[in-house]
Amino acid sequence: MGIVVQKYGGSSVADATGIKRVAQRIVATRKHGHDVVVVVSAMGDTTDELRDLAEQVTPLPPPRELDMLLTAGERISMALLAMAIAQLGHQARSFTGSQAGVITDSVHGRAKIIDITPGRIEAAIADGAIAIVAGFQGVSQDTKDVTTLGRGASDTTAVALAAALGAEVCEIYSDVDGVFTADPRLVPTASKLDRVSTEEMLEMAASGSKILHLRCVEYARRYQMPIHVRSSFSTKEGTWIIPDDDAGEQPMEQAIIAGVAHDTSEAKITVVGVPDKVGEAARIFEALAAAEINIDMVVQNISAAATGRTDISFTLPRADGQTAMSALARLQHEVGYDKLLYDDQIGKVSLIGAGMRSHPGITARFFAALASAGVNIEMISTSEIRISVIVDEAQVPTAVQATHTAFDLDAHEVEAVVYGGTGR
Amino acid sequence: MGIVVQKYGGSSVADATGIKRVAQRIVATRKHGHDVVVVVSAMGDTTDELRDLAEQVTPLPPPRELDMLLTAGERISMALLAMAIAQLGHQARSFTGSQAGVITDSVHGRAKIIDITPGRIEAAIADGAIAIVAGFQGVSQDTKDVTTLGRGASDTTAVALAAALGAEVCEIYSDVDGVFTADPRLVPTASKLDRVSTEEMLEMAASGSKILHLRCVEYARRYQMPIHVRSSFSTKEGTWIIPDDDAGEQPMEQAIIAGVAHDTSEAKITVVGVPDKVGEAARIFEALAAAEINIDMVVQNISAAATGRTDISFTLPRADGQTAMSALARLQHEVGYDKLLYDDQIGKVSLIGAGMRSHPGITARFFAALASAGVNIEMISTSEIRISVIVDEAQVPTAVQATHTAFDLDAHEVEAVVYGGTGR
Repeated sequence: MGIVVQKYGGSSVADATGIKRVAQRIVATRKHGHDVVVVVSAMGDTTDELRDLAEQVTPLPPPRELDMLLTAGERISMALLAMAIAQLGHQARSFTGSQAGVITDSVHGRAKIIDITPGRIEAAIADGAIAIVAGFQGVSQDTKDVTTLGRGASDTTAVALAAALGAEVCEIYSDVDGVFTADPRLVPTASKLDRVSTEEMLEMAASGSKILHLRCVEYARRYQMPIHVRSSFSTKEGTWIIPDDDAGEQPMEQAIIAGVAHDTSEAKITVVGVPDKVGEAARIFEALAAAEINIDMVVQNISAAATGRTDISFTLPRADGQTAMSALARLQHEVGYDKLLYDDQIGKVSLIGAGMRSHPGITARFFAALASAGVNIEMISTSEIRISVIVDEAQVPTAVQATHTAFDLDAHEVEAVVYGGTGR
Repeated sequence: MGIVVQKYGGSSVADATGIKRVAQRIVATRKHGHDVVVVVSAMGDTTDELRDLAEQVTPLPPPRELDMLLTAGERISMALLAMAIAQLGHQARSFTGSQAGVITDSVHGRAKIIDITPGRIEAAIADGAIAIVAGFQGVSQDTKDVTTLGRGASDTTAVALAAALGAEVCEIYSDVDGVFTADPRLVPTASKLDRVSTEEMLEMAASGSKILHLRCVEYARRYQMPIHVRSSFSTKEGTWIIPDDDAGEQPMEQAIIAGVAHDTSEAKITVVGVPDKVGEAARIFEALAAAEINIDMVVQNISAAATGRTDISFTLPRADGQTAMSALARLQHEVGYDKLLYDDQIGKVSLIGAGMRSHPGITARFFAALASAGVNIEMISTSEIRISVIVDEAQVPTAVQATHTAFDLDAHEVEAVVYGGTGR
């Protein structure tokens, strides 16, 4: 049998009890005959506690040193996990990102993986040992400094390592049973998906689903690596995320809609009364790009012929709201717009499903469901397999529930159980 | 000006406030024109807390993984210290033992330094940065695994690094003002030594003085590196430990006696009624050596002609008492001794001074002082510059005080101040 890569999040290894439970699950996989490589996050809230320590010392820690500090978190959890496995009578060896050959660029705090050279991992496996690898960290190619891949990037480490090792599957463990048709906290009748395509999962991750990070799914897609998202608190099968090629032609039983995602982390800015001349919109978006702000949806009203002016609205992460407003304010004289409006009481609701391609009428049914529920649509954007709308933040739960029901996604009984509860 | 290596113990960097205070001191040294390399221990009780975590997972952690775990401690303190220095407007870069080129053997938990290849430290200095190095850790030459040098070995890292860099001095900071003529907790009138020879410091460390570890002083002696032991809580000059060659001929004003050390960590075993034949004593000590027990003092009574039997007494670390008694019990039939006596209510008091060589009568004065104080001597051992006696543990304070007074070491006022108080 081949290699299985398993990734355990911070809530699964929050304390000694959790670490011992995870060790038993790893050993059980080993006993089934698989070679096992484990990627582990820092215990519980360790990373946040280390950030707090840094904040006590300086408001602006140098990124190189912040990475050095934060990587202590996985060093602790991976060593303890290796000890717990040894206690069960199996060999285990822990490896830092650098030792595991996770080579990155030098952008501290959000480094990108350039290459994986897992020689020491392969040697450990060849010796019959279980390899434990620190998630979230690597070593920079040019400066040989310790880097971190950014928040929640242990999933990405796991998928990239699975690809480099030619693993059969990358199992991502957390405190939920899998990917659901909607957030069970909003929709109690949300049902667990048995399988979903990488393409659909990409859209869900980009639309606010927090179960997997976007970069991790992008890796899985690029390297055709199947992911199995499941709970470390139960032995139930979770959700399989299947590469698009493997998914092949849509099988007859494939659901048209995979699920409903929502995101309340964005804000909307409207630039009112922009002169409707060539290049004015470009100047606005150039200024935002210069400030390193990623914008999401954009809508430009039809120009009122009488005034020769138009309104441009766009959404962006709330965290960047202040920066964007300042950048735009500096442009007012130059562009000559009337005013800026800022609204962070918005939410995005997205309907995702590969079946949309071949089933017309999905949009109409979506909008009708929202209308019946009394939800007003402020902005719309679509991809081939996704329709997203911006609505009033207060109406997000109503909108998600109404959409979920309209597409017959409600389960007959409540399936979702959230274990642990310290978050991922 | 040359390179100064500074080593700060855990009590000096116990929290954010301590780290900022240490950063200011480092920057002050830098502003004086020195290149500064800092060796730092883990914050406060971090190492003990990590050991506790390991114990919660397994009673017998694999040594490789325990080293991986414990080295997280210095990683945290060194990154925070580098941040605090950056906050003061100076460049600082932290380095793990491995990055700093501390090459060791593979004996996890008590690895020995084989070589230091400080290329990255030298590059950092050349760039004008202050280099912060994790104490207590290295990387094994053959397996490239992370190793630790054993408890308190950050002092050794500092001296070895100072030697490798050709530093002017290695400053060891703690929460006491320097080396005292006796432990100030026992002798309130103990006075701080301005200078002491490496040779004397070696005897003091071997006799129970806890201010510096024996290995660190051995390194300083081998590489002729001056050490300056001082407090991180004050700017007072501490104690200079001067290589013997530099000390040269005893200057006129050199004190005959450097100080009085004591040690209450040993136990005494007496093997009663050993047949006084060639080879019997050897078999006893071979058995102890096979059990990896280091013995300290040994006394053999004069054989009673009538019985042809003798008693052999020796001292050893209390921690090894049980192991030694078991090893000897297994020998009873073979050697034919009468019985074993175990006594852990003993203490060792040592008088140390290079002046002993040229001043006869020191021993007589020492023993007379003990007799006047009503202290009974159980065992005696001497070196060229040291006289040690074993006494009843309860009489150790009386013996130390009486000796200190007899050799005119009492200061006119109380000098010793212990800052902080979390120990080293």
